Amino acid sequence: MYLSHLDCPRCRKTYDATVLQNLCECGSPLLARYDLVAAGKAVTPQDIAGRSADLWRYRELLPVSDGEFVTTLGEGWTPMWPAERFGVHIGLDNLLVKDEGLTPTGSFKARGAAVGVSRAKELGVQHIAMPTNGNAGAAWATYAARAGLKATIAMPLAAPEISRLEIRAAKAELHLVDGLINDAGKLIAGILKGGGIFDASTLKEPYRLEGKKTMGYEIAEQLGWRVPDVIIYPTGGGVGLIGIRKAFEEMRALGWIGDKMPRLVAVQSSGCAPIVRAFSHGEHRAEPWENAKTVAFGITVPAPLGDELILDSLSKSGGTALAVDDAEILSDLADFAAHEGLLLCPEGAACLTAARKLRASGWLGRQDEVVVLNTGVGLKYPDSISALG
Amino acid sequence: MYLSHLDCPRCRKTYDATVLQNLCECGSPLLARYDLVAAGKAVTPQDIAGRSADLWRYRELLPVSDGEFVTTLGEGWTPMWPAERFGVHIGLDNLLVKDEGLTPTGSFKARGAAVGVSRAKELGVQHIAMPTNGNAGAAWATYAARAGLKATIAMPLAAPEISRLEIRAAKAELHLVDGLINDAGKLIAGILKGGGIFDASTLKEPYRLEGKKTMGYEIAEQLGWRVPDVIIYPTGGGVGLIGIRKAFEEMRALGWIGDKMPRLVAVQSSGCAPIVRAFSHGEHRAEPWENAKTVAFGITVPAPLGDELILDSLSKSGGTALAVDDAEILSDLADFAAHEGLLLCPEGAACLTAARKLRASGWLGRQDEVVVLNTGVGLKYPDSISALG
Repeated sequence: MYLSHLDCPRCRKTYDATVLQNLCECGSPLLARYDLVAAGKAVTPQDIAGRSADLWRYRELLPVSDGEFVTTLGEGWTPMWPAERFGVHIGLDNLLVKDEGLTPTGSFKARGAAVGVSRAKELGVQHIAMPTNGNAGAAWATYAARAGLKATIAMPLAAPEISRLEIRAAKAELHLVDGLINDAGKLIAGILKGGGIFDASTLKEPYRLEGKKTMGYEIAEQLGWRVPDVIIYPTGGGVGLIGIRKAFEEMRALGWIGDKMPRLVAVQSSGCAPIVRAFSHGEHRAEPWENAKTVAFGITVPAPLGDELILDSLSKSGGTALAVDDAEILSDLADFAAHEGLLLCPEGAACLTAARKLRASGWLGRQDEVVVLNTGVGLKYPDSISALG
Repeated sequence: MYLSHLDCPRCRKTYDATVLQNLCECGSPLLARYDLVAAGKAVTPQDIAGRSADLWRYRELLPVSDGEFVTTLGEGWTPMWPAERFGVHIGLDNLLVKDEGLTPTGSFKARGAAVGVSRAKELGVQHIAMPTNGNAGAAWATYAARAGLKATIAMPLAAPEISRLEIRAAKAELHLVDGLINDAGKLIAGILKGGGIFDASTLKEPYRLEGKKTMGYEIAEQLGWRVPDVIIYPTGGGVGLIGIRKAFEEMRALGWIGDKMPRLVAVQSSGCAPIVRAFSHGEHRAEPWENAKTVAFGITVPAPLGDELILDSLSKSGGTALAVDDAEILSDLADFAAHEGLLLCPEGAACLTAARKLRASGWLGRQDEVVVLNTGVGLKYPDSISALG
């Protein structure tokens, strides 16, 4: 393993990665750091080409030392395909969809859960707890069961019911909260006070980000170790966005890609857009959003803990942030299915809306190579699809 | 392309594969045949190892000549992983799950649709029609839309509602029938009389089988070009079972695997078990099942057109056929989720029940390497999961 330590992107303090860690004492999430010189000597893109079609193909850049602890259901190495009909329809000649719907538990959250659970088990954890909007809790409950760990999950009553079924089927302890994900977080904080349970909340443990970053590695590898012009990402907690940026920085340090970085776009719903508001005001931190509500439930995160890292990724990459309306999301979801057949999830459809609007405004050029992340399987959202009429 | 002709497995008559064909004039389904000597010179397992992680990695053994017609959403090359906890629980040390849930449209039907639609488009089809229990119709509607073809689908009113949503979203014409899949077939037959529409019903066109057979290629390749002892398959129309057997015969002819063939097991619901009844009576054909009903809706096929080919595959491979009850299916679905985290589909869970019973009866030995096909994503069946309580 080439994991060397954890460090704080805010105050630069470093931490021992061989023991359990949560946030930095300054309150910032911690990032996993590797000996990239040694990793780059140990593995090349040519080696990786011949490996298994899952995220563990990047194992030298992942934080699990002993393969015995790898907990997998075949997550990662999802397809990325051109959406020509829909692309041309909205004025983009090179629109690509990275389809995270083809991931165990039906969402990209499984990437974070697979790596997070594997590392937690390796470090001796027997019981994890976390708040969720649904998909992350379902993924962590699933992988915890597969690893033989206990899980305690809290989520809003309004979260999609399918996730409740997944969590209960995996025999995790489920608490339903009449509120939003931050309220679920408060309940979990109370449970954690009892001790003996590891806090696996988004960005409060450093390794789910490592699972999510593999989307960045895959995008580059699937383009032949090249980066696209733009990546559009539906942003709730923003872990994937932060992870993708981290992946591109690591690949650049490894010499696997050149200096070009993709412009990163954070998409939020106009019903919950703390990052968009902060970005438009040039802020480095985001204020909590009041009365959040959107059809894209997965991105209803009023106060993302990674706000600083998200905003920094957007500005440093020359990207932007954009809020879209529920009606537009559903309309583009239907329009995409009519052109390409497949049902995306509402969060993925929000990225299509963003692509359409950014093209109309001229921020995207016709020839730009644009990757849209469809973060989950549309089938998990029958209510949204029914609403299409 | 190495496709040479079509032939009839019943009367041996051969047909031109460069024009559209449906059934043999004797009423049997037709099978696609290849110049395997030439194909074996053109490609080796080593070549395939470096190819894309989808079913098109086997393109020399697929019936599409011009890559321009390949219609893909990244289907195939699904993961196959050990289910150790559940396996040991039911007395099997080497239980593997091939997870077809990670397929576009959430079921293995996408394999048949991708290849069937691609070939239909190559042969000039502009409009397809078919009956379905849900998943196949959703897959064909999706791939037809992606290919720019029209689709007309008929399905039982009782089929899962999610498939209606998928079919309508892809802008296919949908007819709901107050009956079973054979009644839907009658409605389609009436529509086809008008002419100008290609009959894409199960086994009435020869190429969806070619898509489905790739499951067999993948099982062998994922085991290092080796075959398992047993493959357990949920059997409705039985195309996958017939296809897997065909794949193993092709691979043996190509010299890619040895002489050993896996024992094939067909699992049906006790509410609709025409193949099990025929197999237990030593028949070569199956009689239609009256009053079919089961929670595993995908395998509610009272009169499968491929009965002869299915029964022949079971007996020639030293396999068997087994009916399982709905209550057992749901119980094993829950038990699997508790042990491994993941929700399988009811049809996949039916295979777990079969594995458990065949182990209890001694038909399976503790050390047998057993592959279970989970033919779809459990998330597509919230009602079945809710029934778990």
